[in-house]
Amino acid sequence: MAEKYLSDNPPQTIDRLINSLDADKILVITDTNVKAKVFPLLEESQVIRESPILELNPGESGKNLDSVVRIWHQLENIGATRRSVILNIGGGVVTDLGGFASATFKRGIRYINFPTTVLGAVDAAVGGKTGINFMGLKNEIGAFHNPSNIILSSLPFSTLPENEFLSGYAEMVKIALVSDRKFYIDLLDFNNFIEDRINLERYLEKCLNIKEDIVMQDPKENGLRKILNFGHTAGHAFETLKLEKKEDITHGKAVAHGMLVALILSHMKVNFDSMEVSFYSDFMTQYYGRALIRCNEVDNIKELVGHDKKNPKQGEPAFSLLKSIGNPEINCMVRDKELTEALEIYIDMVG
Amino acid sequence: MAEKYLSDNPPQTIDRLINSLDADKILVITDTNVKAKVFPLLEESQVIRESPILELNPGESGKNLDSVVRIWHQLENIGATRRSVILNIGGGVVTDLGGFASATFKRGIRYINFPTTVLGAVDAAVGGKTGINFMGLKNEIGAFHNPSNIILSSLPFSTLPENEFLSGYAEMVKIALVSDRKFYIDLLDFNNFIEDRINLERYLEKCLNIKEDIVMQDPKENGLRKILNFGHTAGHAFETLKLEKKEDITHGKAVAHGMLVALILSHMKVNFDSMEVSFYSDFMTQYYGRALIRCNEVDNIKELVGHDKKNPKQGEPAFSLLKSIGNPEINCMVRDKELTEALEIYIDMVG
Repeated sequence: MAEKYLSDNPPQTIDRLINSLDADKILVITDTNVKAKVFPLLEESQVIRESPILELNPGESGKNLDSVVRIWHQLENIGATRRSVILNIGGGVVTDLGGFASATFKRGIRYINFPTTVLGAVDAAVGGKTGINFMGLKNEIGAFHNPSNIILSSLPFSTLPENEFLSGYAEMVKIALVSDRKFYIDLLDFNNFIEDRINLERYLEKCLNIKEDIVMQDPKENGLRKILNFGHTAGHAFETLKLEKKEDITHGKAVAHGMLVALILSHMKVNFDSMEVSFYSDFMTQYYGRALIRCNEVDNIKELVGHDKKNPKQGEPAFSLLKSIGNPEINCMVRDKELTEALEIYIDMVG
Repeated sequence: MAEKYLSDNPPQTIDRLINSLDADKILVITDTNVKAKVFPLLEESQVIRESPILELNPGESGKNLDSVVRIWHQLENIGATRRSVILNIGGGVVTDLGGFASATFKRGIRYINFPTTVLGAVDAAVGGKTGINFMGLKNEIGAFHNPSNIILSSLPFSTLPENEFLSGYAEMVKIALVSDRKFYIDLLDFNNFIEDRINLERYLEKCLNIKEDIVMQDPKENGLRKILNFGHTAGHAFETLKLEKKEDITHGKAVAHGMLVALILSHMKVNFDSMEVSFYSDFMTQYYGRALIRCNEVDNIKELVGHDKKNPKQGEPAFSLLKSIGNPEINCMVRDKELTEALEIYIDMVG
């Protein structure tokens, strides 16, 4: 597992950490947005001032093999060895790309993640999943490779637009849903949550600890860890559909909607309380808007769900569902008819 | 560790093995040479008859990212899932490529190696190293990912040209040199060895067991496993130089010469017996010819040695050497002057 550093002074933490790793070369990886907005906050770091910085194009569309090849090239150009370290500073796209390049350069070198988004901090920074999109499929190519360290700070979050903030918030709600009803209720008090940075950091740390517990018990996602996919089976399909249509959507928004589909299926298949479905639905529409698809797109979503790489068999989607909040059930096979019905209910409820 | 199947009936072993793995899709990966020469020996396998087969271009020059992308595409085309299995049938290039594609497709699926060369059986089939060449550097991009199974049979070796046979033989000699003087002496009786298939299989199994012992003690090559790089520091440099000059050389031949350089350094730095150096040198020239470089190429080799990814620091080559046969010493730092001297002695001895 990666060592976490909660930091109220990231420039100092970066310098101390890099120093302790005895790296011969450092490559900093970020994207042009983060470079412009977050790096001014890090100027006091000697590592940031003096290391080569590779700026990727921001956004999901740059999360591809070309970007990985750019990183490999840059590593060669600076003469990186097995003792070198990659420092990823950015959101999930940067940490997934930099992580995958680290996993594969000379069969694996060390890397540090400094997530600059709430989503990155809660979703991408723990668990060792790295990867890129391929043939229009999210994270289709990748590897498991743990960062050696994670730097956690809410400092960069002040630079986030609200939709990015909300994207990470959805992943936090997911972790609460699969683990702890009290935490879920606490989290839903969004105004309290967003205005108080101390509260935010406390909740974030709690999410990471829950997630780490789960991941440590099942590092390769053979069983238990699948509960972290809650909301992601339909969520990824929503995301891929929007990608195909060249429409922007945040990961968290797609997952927030995917969780509603999963809760509807949970009610249909494992007796999840219908009042809780309505309660979540009200919360969701308040922050994440109305339905992402219309009736004529149900078939597209079903096809994409059938392609999900987490399905044990092609075309037979396996969902992680909830018997109640904090009480998940993995590997629930969902029939074609059931998925159609759930998507139609979803459209009825929030369309 | 991968489970090994010594097989005198490979078609039957393939079918039984695949059956036991409960795979939803199979992709067979091979190259055009192996397809033409070895597949006629496997016609009785239902798996071979009925599975999609991807034929790569043979040889080191095809061991690149384009070939991996071809495999990923083919996996998508057949609808592969995390339950699918890749069956690599070929030499080290095929098993390294197919292994790397398996390591990275959906963050890792299962694969089986059926090596069709002696080199592949002894070198590439055990240890979990997968990879491709990048920017002219051998195995520069890759991952550690163990095959779930290895099928071992001397059946395909009958199709090998002598230089390919000798290439694998050099790796067997290497394993004997770093582990066991008696085994080394036994192995050098080449005529006995090549004419008797039972002897060959027995020696091969012994090599794999020795190698597996070493790899299990140090899966990520942090220490002990480096003894398996014996002869490879200079050997890889010879290989890369020939690649740059578009001259063919087998891996084993380059390693056989690299081992002579390593034995000369062993004598210079850790008191390896000079008589043993001469003894090895006589054996080597008989099967692997005279020196691979001239004096004006010493600097090229030194530069390539400095780039070796196994160096703890860029430009400071670390060799695995021998205090005596079976008694290796890893991480021997070699100064520029010492390497020059060793390469000059090598050219003097066998040039």
